[in-house]
Amino acid sequence: MCGVSSLIILGIDPGTAITGYGIVDYQGNHYKLIEYGVLRTSKDQDVAERLNDVYIGINKLIEVYKPDCMAIEELFFNKNVKTALQVGQARGVVMLVAYQKKVPIYEFTPLQVKQAVVGYGRAEKKQVQFMVKAILNLSDIPRPDDAADALAIAICQGNYCSSGLMLRSDKNC
Amino acid sequence: MCGVSSLIILGIDPGTAITGYGIVDYQGNHYKLIEYGVLRTSKDQDVAERLNDVYIGINKLIEVYKPDCMAIEELFFNKNVKTALQVGQARGVVMLVAYQKKVPIYEFTPLQVKQAVVGYGRAEKKQVQFMVKAILNLSDIPRPDDAADALAIAICQGNYCSSGLMLRSDKNC
Repeated sequence: MCGVSSLIILGIDPGTAITGYGIVDYQGNHYKLIEYGVLRTSKDQDVAERLNDVYIGINKLIEVYKPDCMAIEELFFNKNVKTALQVGQARGVVMLVAYQKKVPIYEFTPLQVKQAVVGYGRAEKKQVQFMVKAILNLSDIPRPDDAADALAIAICQGNYCSSGLMLRSDKNC
Repeated sequence: MCGVSSLIILGIDPGTAITGYGIVDYQGNHYKLIEYGVLRTSKDQDVAERLNDVYIGINKLIEVYKPDCMAIEELFFNKNVKTALQVGQARGVVMLVAYQKKVPIYEFTPLQVKQAVVGYGRAEKKQVQFMVKAILNLSDIPRPDDAADALAIAICQGNYCSSGLMLRSDKNC
């Protein structure tokens, strides 16, 4: 996957209520924004229906934008168990869609995302958002946060490709 | 759903490595075992592929046994965040399949399962397994534990139906 001259990367920040997505075209160390946004579900829906909305939404994004790969945060340990279970449910559905659509998945820790986007792993959220805006040459910081986070993950994926570093989940990289 | 004379219940204990399932026929306060077992995935597989195996496996179970409903544990808070995220991923996929197959989902806490099967909520795992064996008139305790747990959840669902209690996720019960 890495080493190619143009790469459409779909970054995802999964959640049952809001799943952020960001799609970038990575060409020769430059990034071009293609699209970003969020998939929202209603708290009035059953969880299973919300997960199905995520399933349908991610399927559509892949069909429309035909990404070469998906980037997603690996794990997070700074939230509580209930949150982890809920995020896990949405994350499982997102990974399932990618697998079914044959889109390779790359996982990054929050530390890796911050290092790639800002330059150091303990960066504040606002610094990450500022750098996302700068790297993608946007007039404003992307809103909501979930979409900005998804773009940061997508940028991280491109940076790791350009650095030639072996990715855990990409034995061919 | 409740109040009908015969009910095929699919109990699920979700996990990425092992998903336990137990299918019972609940007729007039009696339970008959239909099938139980586990879906196993290999740690050599990528997570997304394992989740897809769970997706395919649950789809097949629903197609073969045509359950009227699915029973699943609601949440658990006694495990760590990493475990919760991993279980959440498999749980999300299981709920997605049920939704797509139009199988109503009923969620129960571990406390409810123990109360329903043993009679009190602080029962030991072995007591639950012993009661599953007794209620289903089996010669041995079902193995592995994941399958026994899934059967316990299915029995819990039947008991709640027979008690006429309103279930959180079943407004028609």
